[in-house]
Amino acid sequence: MPEPDHTTSEGDRDIRILVDGHGGDSAPTMVLDALEMVLSPKFAAQFSASLAFGVVGQEEVLSPLLRERGIENRISLVAATDVIEMCDSPSHALRRKKDSSIHVGARLVRDGSWDALVSAGNTGALMAISKVVLKTLPGIDRPAIASMIPAVNDGCTLMLDAGANSECTSDHLIQFAIMGSCYMQATEGLSAPRVGLLNIGSEDIKGTDVIKLTSTKLAETDLNYIGNVEGTDLFGNDVDVVVCDGFVGNVALKTMEGTARFLASSMRKELTSSLVSKAGALLARSALNRFKDRVNPGKYNGAPLLGLNGIVVKSHGGADAEAFVSAIAVACKEVDANLTDRITQSVQEMVEA
Amino acid sequence: MPEPDHTTSEGDRDIRILVDGHGGDSAPTMVLDALEMVLSPKFAAQFSASLAFGVVGQEEVLSPLLRERGIENRISLVAATDVIEMCDSPSHALRRKKDSSIHVGARLVRDGSWDALVSAGNTGALMAISKVVLKTLPGIDRPAIASMIPAVNDGCTLMLDAGANSECTSDHLIQFAIMGSCYMQATEGLSAPRVGLLNIGSEDIKGTDVIKLTSTKLAETDLNYIGNVEGTDLFGNDVDVVVCDGFVGNVALKTMEGTARFLASSMRKELTSSLVSKAGALLARSALNRFKDRVNPGKYNGAPLLGLNGIVVKSHGGADAEAFVSAIAVACKEVDANLTDRITQSVQEMVEA
Repeated sequence: MPEPDHTTSEGDRDIRILVDGHGGDSAPTMVLDALEMVLSPKFAAQFSASLAFGVVGQEEVLSPLLRERGIENRISLVAATDVIEMCDSPSHALRRKKDSSIHVGARLVRDGSWDALVSAGNTGALMAISKVVLKTLPGIDRPAIASMIPAVNDGCTLMLDAGANSECTSDHLIQFAIMGSCYMQATEGLSAPRVGLLNIGSEDIKGTDVIKLTSTKLAETDLNYIGNVEGTDLFGNDVDVVVCDGFVGNVALKTMEGTARFLASSMRKELTSSLVSKAGALLARSALNRFKDRVNPGKYNGAPLLGLNGIVVKSHGGADAEAFVSAIAVACKEVDANLTDRITQSVQEMVEA
Repeated sequence: MPEPDHTTSEGDRDIRILVDGHGGDSAPTMVLDALEMVLSPKFAAQFSASLAFGVVGQEEVLSPLLRERGIENRISLVAATDVIEMCDSPSHALRRKKDSSIHVGARLVRDGSWDALVSAGNTGALMAISKVVLKTLPGIDRPAIASMIPAVNDGCTLMLDAGANSECTSDHLIQFAIMGSCYMQATEGLSAPRVGLLNIGSEDIKGTDVIKLTSTKLAETDLNYIGNVEGTDLFGNDVDVVVCDGFVGNVALKTMEGTARFLASSMRKELTSSLVSKAGALLARSALNRFKDRVNPGKYNGAPLLGLNGIVVKSHGGADAEAFVSAIAVACKEVDANLTDRITQSVQEMVEA
């Protein structure tokens, strides 16, 4: 296995990120484009530690691409022979594709050769393999996928679980709350992230039995628990971490995506319906583009798989290079902030309290 | 109790709609404004049966308002002394406000004096009182709230349950599927509405145990069951009825509302950020207004409470008169199509099959 190419500046630890060369609709080109971008001084300037990047996958495919771009000496190439397809079931990928890029990458993170794995591949396979190879952190029963949602005034809200666990007990939900709170402290610098429980009303009597029990228990923790929140609060500035089971979280995320797509297509239809409105749209174009940028899900691409004994970040499968760079940045931030140690410590403190 | 003021044209039955004078943020003015509108020939032209309207509530408040508008002879006034506030708990409203407009209205629908009750008041109270006073239809365990969602190409999708039942068994969900299918047949004229189950992926292995069991059972019914659908499908043209529990449905609805509001405020901010884009927005104004109309939730205001032995329609509390007219139209359609009889018959056929 090639050693990551990096130099350590005194006192700082390195941030060593391995990316999956075969995940995503436009892989491997999109992945290589993103790797070129993260080699820029502008990207590096976000972090005090020095950065090292690698790509894992089929050597015969990736090696020529690295050479073409002239980055073969700056990006380590880690060989893996198998490729997990989007249609592979998680169990098939887990059992039958042990030399896939995700498997090899997860093992190298487990062994400490790399600090994090970033993949735009099959979400179910990534979660299943990561769980088996990396295991969960002490005190965490189930890892969760966390999703960052843009909010008003350039804010953002972390929602978890976004789809890994359809059925959750109140203990699972409380663990999600702890992990989400640690994440927002570590990566957004919040001192006491406000944690809300996704419910169908603000009153205590609302929701399922699991939700009601979770609310009571959350109020007894040291977390900055603010009570029930609703779907409309996801985009506001009143909550930082929204906790829910993976079924509800996934429906909420996909509903957001569907609403945004529906509104955009309706707007396009209206704006192109007459010459006058077309002219207006032309004049307002830069504003409409800024609007698109602001609500672009790519800006917040990179969903951390939280609760694993190692850092894994899932990029949207349809991500372009720029969005994939966001996912790599998420991984860098998590490593930089020692997120896994922080979560372990928080869970430990919670158990002792 | 005053008799509804109506004339019956030969062969047709009347549609007699009673509206709650005290429900909604802008009641009673908004309610009276809406009643003026539904008296117009344009509204009546939608139905072959003749229409009769009444308003239920405090006589001393409503009587002068009817007279002011000169419609005291065309709108029956039904007296009720109590008013249910938005902050009243459903159980308090149910037990302590037996002479409220909702209670009196529900009793008159039960007794056959009126065909439907329309209210923009407290949803929990409306559901609780309707359930106790009207009872559920044979074969229906729990009534559901159904919500109509706008979709591309001027289509629409009915989602239920939108919030009445947080926890549902597969039998409840199947009953929702039957009711939703009947509703779309009756009010939208679809011969075999496509029924989908809201899930977090299209594959059969996805979702909770209840969802998987429901999917298996739905496939065995006579319904036009198309399998799992996702949050993104709510706005498409591939499904007519989306079935889910009330927790998930409510989160989805409020997430839609939040997303739309967030996008609108972001767009406004960008469009007013420079003179050029302001000018563009001005030129595109009529297009932007048509866009707002198209995605305006008011257009689809009027959520039927399905499964009750009587027709009850809930309007959004923030509805304006025009949106409240939509809710009244929903009630008229349900009466006109004999919806409760249809549901009863479908459930009966399903049990016999």
